Amino acid sequence: MRFVAGARDAGSRARRGTLHTSRGAVETPAFMPVGTRATVTGLTPADLLTLDAPILLANTYHLLLRPGPDVLRRVGGIHGFMRWPRPVLTDSGGYQIFSLPGDRTITERGARFRSYVDGRPHDLTPEASIEMQAAIGSDIMMVLDVCVNATSDEGAVRDAMERTHRWALRSLAARKNPAQALFAIVQGGVVPALRRQSAAFLTAHPFDGFALGGLAVGDSRAQREDITGLAVDLLPSALPRYLMGVGTPPDLLYAIGCGVDMFDCVLPTHLAWQGTAFTSTGRVRVTRGANNAADGPLDASCACSTCRTFGRSYLYHLFKCSEPLGPRLLSIHNLHHYLQLMRDARAAIDAGVYAEFARARLAEIDRHEHGEVRA
Amino acid sequence: MRFVAGARDAGSRARRGTLHTSRGAVETPAFMPVGTRATVTGLTPADLLTLDAPILLANTYHLLLRPGPDVLRRVGGIHGFMRWPRPVLTDSGGYQIFSLPGDRTITERGARFRSYVDGRPHDLTPEASIEMQAAIGSDIMMVLDVCVNATSDEGAVRDAMERTHRWALRSLAARKNPAQALFAIVQGGVVPALRRQSAAFLTAHPFDGFALGGLAVGDSRAQREDITGLAVDLLPSALPRYLMGVGTPPDLLYAIGCGVDMFDCVLPTHLAWQGTAFTSTGRVRVTRGANNAADGPLDASCACSTCRTFGRSYLYHLFKCSEPLGPRLLSIHNLHHYLQLMRDARAAIDAGVYAEFARARLAEIDRHEHGEVRA
Repeated sequence: MRFVAGARDAGSRARRGTLHTSRGAVETPAFMPVGTRATVTGLTPADLLTLDAPILLANTYHLLLRPGPDVLRRVGGIHGFMRWPRPVLTDSGGYQIFSLPGDRTITERGARFRSYVDGRPHDLTPEASIEMQAAIGSDIMMVLDVCVNATSDEGAVRDAMERTHRWALRSLAARKNPAQALFAIVQGGVVPALRRQSAAFLTAHPFDGFALGGLAVGDSRAQREDITGLAVDLLPSALPRYLMGVGTPPDLLYAIGCGVDMFDCVLPTHLAWQGTAFTSTGRVRVTRGANNAADGPLDASCACSTCRTFGRSYLYHLFKCSEPLGPRLLSIHNLHHYLQLMRDARAAIDAGVYAEFARARLAEIDRHEHGEVRA
Repeated sequence: MRFVAGARDAGSRARRGTLHTSRGAVETPAFMPVGTRATVTGLTPADLLTLDAPILLANTYHLLLRPGPDVLRRVGGIHGFMRWPRPVLTDSGGYQIFSLPGDRTITERGARFRSYVDGRPHDLTPEASIEMQAAIGSDIMMVLDVCVNATSDEGAVRDAMERTHRWALRSLAARKNPAQALFAIVQGGVVPALRRQSAAFLTAHPFDGFALGGLAVGDSRAQREDITGLAVDLLPSALPRYLMGVGTPPDLLYAIGCGVDMFDCVLPTHLAWQGTAFTSTGRVRVTRGANNAADGPLDASCACSTCRTFGRSYLYHLFKCSEPLGPRLLSIHNLHHYLQLMRDARAAIDAGVYAEFARARLAEIDRHEHGEVRA
């Protein structure tokens, strides 16, 4: 993997870049649709190519439990398994160990937990995570990190950060295949001094990119923005910067303005399955009664196949009948919305007008949502 | 609508035909995928065009309750609503009145029942069914009929048949738009004398086609085959013959050999959502453990996009994870299987070898299924 930093915006810290991988180039800023279990819920790889998704995210923890490393090795990794020809980034499972219920013990060695599939015990150590990511064959691997709630006390946040650092070095040592890039994860909660310390420690080691972890887990939007703005500046400009698990379109607009290159978030697909659409004027609940009387597209300014083909009253009908075509059509729309936001952002940076672009987009969303998206 | 009867098979009563409609021609024998609520579960019209489905079936009863006639009239009927450019046949709701739970009263006038959506009372009379089918704008409408279990006593079967006849004439009188074809439904359970009487009565009136109703509702495969063979011969050869709600691939192979032109059945889509695939060698449960160790296609001789793209271990994974892409990919496969069976049957009739073709296909299925599909 090779990252080439490109044009910088005139009025913000936003920047363009290109991530070159053996499976194609990813123009940044880039959004990665989430395909946790080697499937972006309800969509085929052909759908995702039509949407021009440049890269997908999958999850080491879930793929470890099902289908497991043996199947993945046999079929040539996740690309052969799900038939996706473009790059894949795998999260390490650190966030799942932190967030999923069930008894697990985390020691210096790693996490031990029972499979939710068959109850069998598993060890997820930094080395085991890298071994599993090797079986998955992802183009970009993430180190196993230790997550805590952003609202935890400073001592707990510091302990988690320091263990994250030790695990990052073990992950780096465990990597065997240099063709798989490895990103480290900066932790430190919402404590500026800890974020500085974490960035300083990790950037002293030869990782291929750096992520900001531990955000959007109990922090406010203002805290998230402050930490993002602070931490991005601490990362080397020659390498890609990835803000993990964030966020809403306003979150993305802000973070791009800070110089973040990569994003992933479950919101576009999760909210689609719940009947909520992202539109140019904010969120729309498809099941609102008014949509039964509206035959125009969900978003008249949207060029996705859902908006070009179907009317609101039909989408309303599908959701009211619990027909699975509804979430499928809305997933297409929401992912297109996110991917188009990235295309528009890249064009604005290229034109040197990103700051004005982001301000206008935020104003349009906020005007319609009345601050609803603020966490 | 205009039906042109084509070549007849040399060794069976199978026949080719073409149903000309204002929305395109349907080559017969034809299978109609079921899109009860203006959606073939999980699939887009584009998917169905890729499968080359020539015509869909939708349901008057369900569309009456949701979205209702007002929405359908506003958007130009079901074609505008679901964006399907090819013909649609609507079942009248007779079968739903018979089969759905909940209190309903059926009198000579029609059926009265409460909506499962909002509890509001509805009258479904022969005239109301035609009015709703006019709002739907289907290319082929069905008369409202009275269904009973095939195992009901002869008196009940006779009463239902006679009321079906009176309702058929009321439906014919209620039709206002001659561009919408209207098919009558031959009833009479598994009693040969009643089937003869029903066919004689209905074929004396100017319907555009004739269906066999009341089969696959408690009858055995042998009874169904006997009645199909008997009843098809009683129908005019110049008009299309439609066997409603039937059935498995062996059922279709048998009925085509009797001279049936049209079919619909929920099996390919329903079984797909339950994880069962139709293949050239019979049914396959995708969730069988052996599939986790098999990376080849579901059916090596199948040309559908699912079989050309994905392996069994991936389909197994999707179903084990309850991922909606699994049923979607299996629906594509199962519908392709049914539609390809029809294409193959038409080619065999054209070549005058349908009897041998059907025998070979049945033997292949029976050999693998060991009689499993026999009801």
